[in-house]
Amino acid sequence: MSQRVRISLDAMGGDHGPSVVVPGAAIARERHPDLTFLMFGDEAVIAPLVAAEPRLKDAVEIRHTTVAVAMDDKPSQAVRQGRGKSSMWQAIQAVRDGQAEAAVSAGNTGALMAMSKICLKTMTGIERPAIACLWPTVRGESVVLDVGATIGTDAEHLVEMAVMGAAMARIVFDIERPTVGLLNVGTEEMKGNEAVKEAARLLRESEPGNLAYHGFVEGNDLGRGTVDVVVTEGFTGNIALKTAEGTAKQIGSYLRSAMSRTLMAKIGYLFARQAFQALRDKMNPSRANGGVFLGLEGIVIKSHGSENAQGFAAAVDLAYDMARHDLMRTIRDMLDQSPTSVTA
Amino acid sequence: MSQRVRISLDAMGGDHGPSVVVPGAAIARERHPDLTFLMFGDEAVIAPLVAAEPRLKDAVEIRHTTVAVAMDDKPSQAVRQGRGKSSMWQAIQAVRDGQAEAAVSAGNTGALMAMSKICLKTMTGIERPAIACLWPTVRGESVVLDVGATIGTDAEHLVEMAVMGAAMARIVFDIERPTVGLLNVGTEEMKGNEAVKEAARLLRESEPGNLAYHGFVEGNDLGRGTVDVVVTEGFTGNIALKTAEGTAKQIGSYLRSAMSRTLMAKIGYLFARQAFQALRDKMNPSRANGGVFLGLEGIVIKSHGSENAQGFAAAVDLAYDMARHDLMRTIRDMLDQSPTSVTA
Repeated sequence: MSQRVRISLDAMGGDHGPSVVVPGAAIARERHPDLTFLMFGDEAVIAPLVAAEPRLKDAVEIRHTTVAVAMDDKPSQAVRQGRGKSSMWQAIQAVRDGQAEAAVSAGNTGALMAMSKICLKTMTGIERPAIACLWPTVRGESVVLDVGATIGTDAEHLVEMAVMGAAMARIVFDIERPTVGLLNVGTEEMKGNEAVKEAARLLRESEPGNLAYHGFVEGNDLGRGTVDVVVTEGFTGNIALKTAEGTAKQIGSYLRSAMSRTLMAKIGYLFARQAFQALRDKMNPSRANGGVFLGLEGIVIKSHGSENAQGFAAAVDLAYDMARHDLMRTIRDMLDQSPTSVTA
Repeated sequence: MSQRVRISLDAMGGDHGPSVVVPGAAIARERHPDLTFLMFGDEAVIAPLVAAEPRLKDAVEIRHTTVAVAMDDKPSQAVRQGRGKSSMWQAIQAVRDGQAEAAVSAGNTGALMAMSKICLKTMTGIERPAIACLWPTVRGESVVLDVGATIGTDAEHLVEMAVMGAAMARIVFDIERPTVGLLNVGTEEMKGNEAVKEAARLLRESEPGNLAYHGFVEGNDLGRGTVDVVVTEGFTGNIALKTAEGTAKQIGSYLRSAMSRTLMAKIGYLFARQAFQALRDKMNPSRANGGVFLGLEGIVIKSHGSENAQGFAAAVDLAYDMARHDLMRTIRDMLDQSPTSVTA
């Protein structure tokens, strides 16, 4: 693995398209000089932006496309209109065809997942793909999945997610046997819905050697970093993620208003402004941007549609890590080793 | 409604029992001099605490009980051992028998709900009870339900919760026609599970006159205060609530460490300490303590088990408000007026 890592980018995705994607790629390449890019999109727009970025010298191949998926397209509509020819589709197809090790798009999540499923197919042994994110905790970060790929779940799917999430944690955190918890409304055995209780039983009884099953965790364990991997169904996971983001914004707004209310507070703010900057950096959602699609025959990363170049660069970093450390093989190995493969 | 409001208290509930319940009651009574209490529990412990509280003079009647429900009892076990004779059961029974207008307990949630259902019964037209809480937002507060009474839901139950939540919002926020949103993973019509989509259709088509159906809201709308009432299924609602609490704690810990890292930050902290105190007050979960059981033939409020006297007092305040403004009649009226009563 001393070769370069090539990542395909949907340059037209997100609220800002190439004006964020190109500088985002440049930031990521500064951190990883062995990165190269295949950029799909409107060449007339992309080429001058790339030319203006010395950090991208000799690292970009542009492939012109004429169709872009809109942020508000329904997945079915996006597939109908963009299959084969859109920048999003072609970025994914480059992964399928072995031209790139991972694809990154800031486009419409539903469309990206629908196209990824059609183009890459689901991995053998995996029922349905999931979206995993890195959740900032007081101890560092945890892998949390599913944050919105599929609505509704069963025990087998939860177990599959536990294994896939552990594979991702192994790469990102570099730990041999990540701890895994199932998100629930309490930690006692009798709590929760049937899927969660049955998944707990399967994980407890199968004792997979490549992950350490911790038991149930609750919503407040997410920020605490109680386990390396938190597994939950997509509806709940998506709401938990957005609730945490919303709460962070809410407290940020309380803090700003508290610090500007009195002269003393303003003076205090001036003295402590570096500390506030550190806090802002810590709370900056761009730092942990990027949803990893797990369970597909290829690596696809979703960047937030509204991110700036720093945020997009974080998603590219994540794609780089996943490709560099061969996420696909790690997942396959863990599925093979896992007694839970009987459930497939 | 010029008479006194009498509230029954499970004095043995919670991690701290009477040592928090009695002073909590005293704080609430200072704010509402027309409050009186029926306290159930170990008289030998309660009586001296009450005697030591001048704010409770002539306001407390103690009823001795010998059985207390433990915080870790399973609901079935608690009912078996505590039915009829525990402090928790008797506090609820006092509501059923018209001796108190509302009951407050900091005990085991599952046991309190199980006993409340058996003792008070579910309201006519309501399938299953829900737990509602007041969620702090940048605009004030919202009513959020269900935060953990029942796992799993259907469209009819979501609609019932919309009506009950609106009744509570009407009382707490004093608004004629509260706005109601259904918690979902996106705001577009096709998003979400079947129950949520069908509930949206029912609420849109029935156009209940006593609530303004807003549409879907997402996790980040909770802190934003987009609507007066947010309705969701109990599993998701419980996880969202604990995720928000956890995130607030996490940011609090970031802030503390940022403010103690450098001398400049420490000086800044000293200048701004009143602002920080205001922020701490704003983020204090005790301020919004109290889960309201909705859908039962009587008012029962659950206080957090680990709360201090201020937190318990907030739960008593909530019980006072609900009793004073006749929550039961408001819910009945709204159910009668609501075209959704066809679903019952």
